[in-house]
Amino acid sequence: MDGGKIIIEKEPVLLPNRVLVRFQPHNREIEVPAGENLLKAAVEAGVYIQASCGGEAFCGKCRVKIEKGETEGPRTPKVSEEEYRQGFRLACQTRVRSDVEVLIPVESHLDRRVIARTRERVSAGRRVSHQELESLVLGWCYSPALRKQFVEVEPPTAKDNRSDLSRLLVALKKNCGLEGISVDSRLLWRLPSILREADWKVTATLVQTRMESQLGEYQLRGSRRTKLINLEKGDLAQEHYSIVLDIGTTTVWGQLLDLNRRKTLAEVSDYNAQIQYGDDVISRIVYSQKPGGLKKLQESVVGTVNGLIREMVVKGGVDISRVSHMTAAGNTVMTHLLLGLDPKYIRESPYTPVANYIPPIRAVEAGFEVGEHVHLYTFPSVASYVGGDIVSGVLGSGIYQRKPLTLYIDIGTNGEIVIGNSEWLVTAACSAGPAFEGGGIKHGMRATTGALEDFRINPVSYEPMLLTIGMVKPKGICGSGLINMIAEFLEAGVISPNGKFNAELPTPRIRPGPDGREYVLAYAEETATGADLVITEVDIDNLMRAKAAMYAGYVTLLQSVGLSIASLEQVVIAGAFGSFIDLERAITIGLLPELPLDRFLFIGNGSLLGARLISFCNEMLDDGERISRMMTNIELSENPSFMDNYIAALFLPHTNSAEFPGVSQKLKVRSSEFGVRKLEAL
Amino acid sequence: MDGGKIIIEKEPVLLPNRVLVRFQPHNREIEVPAGENLLKAAVEAGVYIQASCGGEAFCGKCRVKIEKGETEGPRTPKVSEEEYRQGFRLACQTRVRSDVEVLIPVESHLDRRVIARTRERVSAGRRVSHQELESLVLGWCYSPALRKQFVEVEPPTAKDNRSDLSRLLVALKKNCGLEGISVDSRLLWRLPSILREADWKVTATLVQTRMESQLGEYQLRGSRRTKLINLEKGDLAQEHYSIVLDIGTTTVWGQLLDLNRRKTLAEVSDYNAQIQYGDDVISRIVYSQKPGGLKKLQESVVGTVNGLIREMVVKGGVDISRVSHMTAAGNTVMTHLLLGLDPKYIRESPYTPVANYIPPIRAVEAGFEVGEHVHLYTFPSVASYVGGDIVSGVLGSGIYQRKPLTLYIDIGTNGEIVIGNSEWLVTAACSAGPAFEGGGIKHGMRATTGALEDFRINPVSYEPMLLTIGMVKPKGICGSGLINMIAEFLEAGVISPNGKFNAELPTPRIRPGPDGREYVLAYAEETATGADLVITEVDIDNLMRAKAAMYAGYVTLLQSVGLSIASLEQVVIAGAFGSFIDLERAITIGLLPELPLDRFLFIGNGSLLGARLISFCNEMLDDGERISRMMTNIELSENPSFMDNYIAALFLPHTNSAEFPGVSQKLKVRSSEFGVRKLEAL
Repeated sequence: MDGGKIIIEKEPVLLPNRVLVRFQPHNREIEVPAGENLLKAAVEAGVYIQASCGGEAFCGKCRVKIEKGETEGPRTPKVSEEEYRQGFRLACQTRVRSDVEVLIPVESHLDRRVIARTRERVSAGRRVSHQELESLVLGWCYSPALRKQFVEVEPPTAKDNRSDLSRLLVALKKNCGLEGISVDSRLLWRLPSILREADWKVTATLVQTRMESQLGEYQLRGSRRTKLINLEKGDLAQEHYSIVLDIGTTTVWGQLLDLNRRKTLAEVSDYNAQIQYGDDVISRIVYSQKPGGLKKLQESVVGTVNGLIREMVVKGGVDISRVSHMTAAGNTVMTHLLLGLDPKYIRESPYTPVANYIPPIRAVEAGFEVGEHVHLYTFPSVASYVGGDIVSGVLGSGIYQRKPLTLYIDIGTNGEIVIGNSEWLVTAACSAGPAFEGGGIKHGMRATTGALEDFRINPVSYEPMLLTIGMVKPKGICGSGLINMIAEFLEAGVISPNGKFNAELPTPRIRPGPDGREYVLAYAEETATGADLVITEVDIDNLMRAKAAMYAGYVTLLQSVGLSIASLEQVVIAGAFGSFIDLERAITIGLLPELPLDRFLFIGNGSLLGARLISFCNEMLDDGERISRMMTNIELSENPSFMDNYIAALFLPHTNSAEFPGVSQKLKVRSSEFGVRKLEAL
Repeated sequence: MDGGKIIIEKEPVLLPNRVLVRFQPHNREIEVPAGENLLKAAVEAGVYIQASCGGEAFCGKCRVKIEKGETEGPRTPKVSEEEYRQGFRLACQTRVRSDVEVLIPVESHLDRRVIARTRERVSAGRRVSHQELESLVLGWCYSPALRKQFVEVEPPTAKDNRSDLSRLLVALKKNCGLEGISVDSRLLWRLPSILREADWKVTATLVQTRMESQLGEYQLRGSRRTKLINLEKGDLAQEHYSIVLDIGTTTVWGQLLDLNRRKTLAEVSDYNAQIQYGDDVISRIVYSQKPGGLKKLQESVVGTVNGLIREMVVKGGVDISRVSHMTAAGNTVMTHLLLGLDPKYIRESPYTPVANYIPPIRAVEAGFEVGEHVHLYTFPSVASYVGGDIVSGVLGSGIYQRKPLTLYIDIGTNGEIVIGNSEWLVTAACSAGPAFEGGGIKHGMRATTGALEDFRINPVSYEPMLLTIGMVKPKGICGSGLINMIAEFLEAGVISPNGKFNAELPTPRIRPGPDGREYVLAYAEETATGADLVITEVDIDNLMRAKAAMYAGYVTLLQSVGLSIASLEQVVIAGAFGSFIDLERAITIGLLPELPLDRFLFIGNGSLLGARLISFCNEMLDDGERISRMMTNIELSENPSFMDNYIAALFLPHTNSAEFPGVSQKLKVRSSEFGVRKLEAL
């Protein structure tokens, strides 16, 4: 399998029971996990049900009748007792328990001739399970850098009164074959009391360190050595944990790993508290230059991490003192700020970071609330705007090991792009702007409760079907919701390929607003904010700029190595945001290139994946550094063809329809279908 | 010369002018440096001149007449103008400027038939000069572990915007051929501003570190690597200093070294401020176990060192920030206390230290007032009572490199003994007690101003001739003075070989006291204390125990390897105390073995010598650790023959006169001479 396309070689993973939901009168069927929400199933199936409250049982519009099968859900005042007995339910409040047949009453779909369009499942593209993720990378073996070893030390006698340290090292050699161990000198202060209080039965924590290797800027040397960093009383060899972190500009993710059992004990996330000082890396750098600013930024993110650590050890039922190591991946600015390194010159031309490779530091010295022996390893960066998060992601996805030409993307405020294979890797970062994270959008918000996440439009009435995160009254629009909405608008002819609303459509929802025309997604009484929720032409323009920047990034990077989109054999989509994307719709708007859907692979948080891999397999550290050295960074802002590609991509999906033949064809068909239906509806 | 006896291969050192002093009526001659004090010259020559005030011109008894030659000295009321014109002077106030002939008037020597005994010069044995010391060790080359390197770094450009660190390392590689450098991560915090404020012209401090090697308790690995530890603005490569320290139980010595010029810029010493918490290592350990005791002890000695550092940088005209490194040697307890390591179990059987080898620590973390980048290397110990000071001394003396069987001794409260050569080394420590440092002696004191340092006795009148340090009124007796006194007493028959005073002598100075008999060295009106200064039989007993412990140490150690005193080809005497010893008299009392005097070599402060050597020659670190591993420690207290040897040595010089044939013969002759003279005097 080596060198081939990524094929996951795991045994089949046990899936939750799946059930079949059939929607009538459309006779559309979809398979979903048992327990799935019926409104979500309808969205997945491409069946339109009226729903303007986001799924909070507030509007009562999504009434359906269960004809067959088992469902469950709370009673609601919107359904009378009589209706309930007949099988009426609110779709948004109902979960399916078995195969079911659902009738959508005429008042719920409003339009008898509902779109029977076929579409790929939202989850098109491979979404890889947790267990499968580990097999993305070839040839890795379970060999954590950290090791805990219970050892019984010989107490001193008159005949053998060597030093405490000597006795301990002799015991480690005798019982465990460990030689040439060096020692963290701090341990010596506690050594005599620990040994004696533990009756000479102790657990040693050992780390495989290396001659510091240094990523191009230094010379790589492979030799490793073992260092004794901690000693605990009694046998605690089985309590051996590490923490991995993805330090995002917006969100910090953490996992607590059981190093012995190769398990994730907890996964948590929280906003990076630095947000209060600016939304993007540039505004953070600006803030860092104010008096005390750098310190505040560092303390903020460390505070966030400390909160996550507390949460994880509680969730995992782990004593914090048993955590042996930390690994963090982040973009270059986040890595600088995490450690309190001055990011000033990252922002000033010619954009130089302090260092790409940062030797592991003692975590307590940076303010992390962990044991004194814990070191923090940060993933090496490549350049000012290509950080350790992408190195970690490339590592975690294994693309640097395989022959197929792969595009790796992490879509975000700083879109990061890697193209290459086992022979070479080029990388670039493009400033997509915050639209994907809900920034710069009139009613944009982050992907949290109340964010409009999925969207359908009635092709005749142009009435919306909203689904929010948490199924509550809509509050705003998150990035993935925005993509879904724009794609839906485009397919329904609500907007034209240049992103402007079609003013001639017979719907009061399209109206002039302060930012050009706008579409009312929900009226004031249906929203959480008590104000109309709208999407404006300026919002659409912002999204178009963001997707154009990403697309121009891939194309320019490919051109710089003499290749084209068509030559891509695989597209790996990383990032929390990436995992919520509807692949087909992302292609529809031209954010992702039009390629066969089976070439796409979603790996979730790639940088956490790489950090996790390194925690379990020390040997992979070399790979991380090799990747960082393999990567050639292309500065897009310096590349003259980037701007041409960008302007060409400022269209839905693209000015050159040949780049999106399928989408163009679909839009043509769709628009004629809409035309026909509109005529019929008159 | 390799493998041979230590022969100093340096060009002759320029000596100060030497002049000849001839004493009449004895017609005794001695060569001394021009400027020598006349009383001291008399002592050296073995000529007795009355002097009971220690040399302060107070008693006026040491009148002499300059017959020929040039002298100088202040006028004193004890010599009239007329007498002065005739050539009369107080010997204690007179310095010789040319060859002189001195008449000792009858009233000054009191006994016409002054002893014309021949004796070796006090300075018998080789006393090695500073420059010569460096050539004791073979094959060392100037290669300090620390190196400063001025380097011009390329500023970043749009085409080359590698990280600041990368640029610096590239410059070090290009300009200095340095590769594979690792970096102290702390430097990164200051890196961007230093580079830019210095206009990219900086001085790097680089250290050759090693895979930690570990003295038997660990495996030794030879590979070294270069680590960047400091960066300064501009060209400061020529300001490159280190500090070496000898942490003694009583005294701390320091030298400030110019690493580039291989020079000592300052040498200072001060009492170890820990003295306030106890005189010896045992009482320090006891104190360390009180609440807060360990911290106080550590802070005390660090305070002493900080004081010495301040003094040295002022003396040397050096900015403290230019000091790059510190090396310290001390006994095991002192090393523990210097770093704040708990010495508790050094004192409790079976006497285990925390560690013999301690990895270099960051000096500021232990409280030393030096730059953040400065590391402190402490010499490895061998066992609880054989410390890094002795390892350093063996290193500095080069005895581990040569074939001749050598006895190395550092006489002190903890007498340290090494026997061996380039093939093997055995070592032992014996608790001699504090007598050599004036402890446990009724009027004992440290070797400071007012301490009785040299001593002669009139063989007929048994009147004393005292010489004190600083030539002031006597205050007490220091260790070397005690040895001189006991030897003189023994030779004059004032005490018998079992250390008891001869009560039958016709002198009022021998009298009963609270501690057995005592001898009055000076009456109350002649002393600085205003009380009689006496030496008691208990004092003598204490000294005998101390010297017996040392001697039994050598013998037991030799026996443990199947050898005897006679097989010793060389005796190296180290330590500040050692350098004040009168070799012949130390043999007379049986402290040093009776061997030809040319086999003895005095090297002064051996541990400072080794620390200094390592500062100039990094390669020698391996030798230090090799020595520590070569050394087999013999626990004397566990050795049954030690007690036998000890008891046999509780005699002056020894119960077995065959071990000191020369001394025994001399005492026999002397006693008959004294007998004859006494008869004549009647």
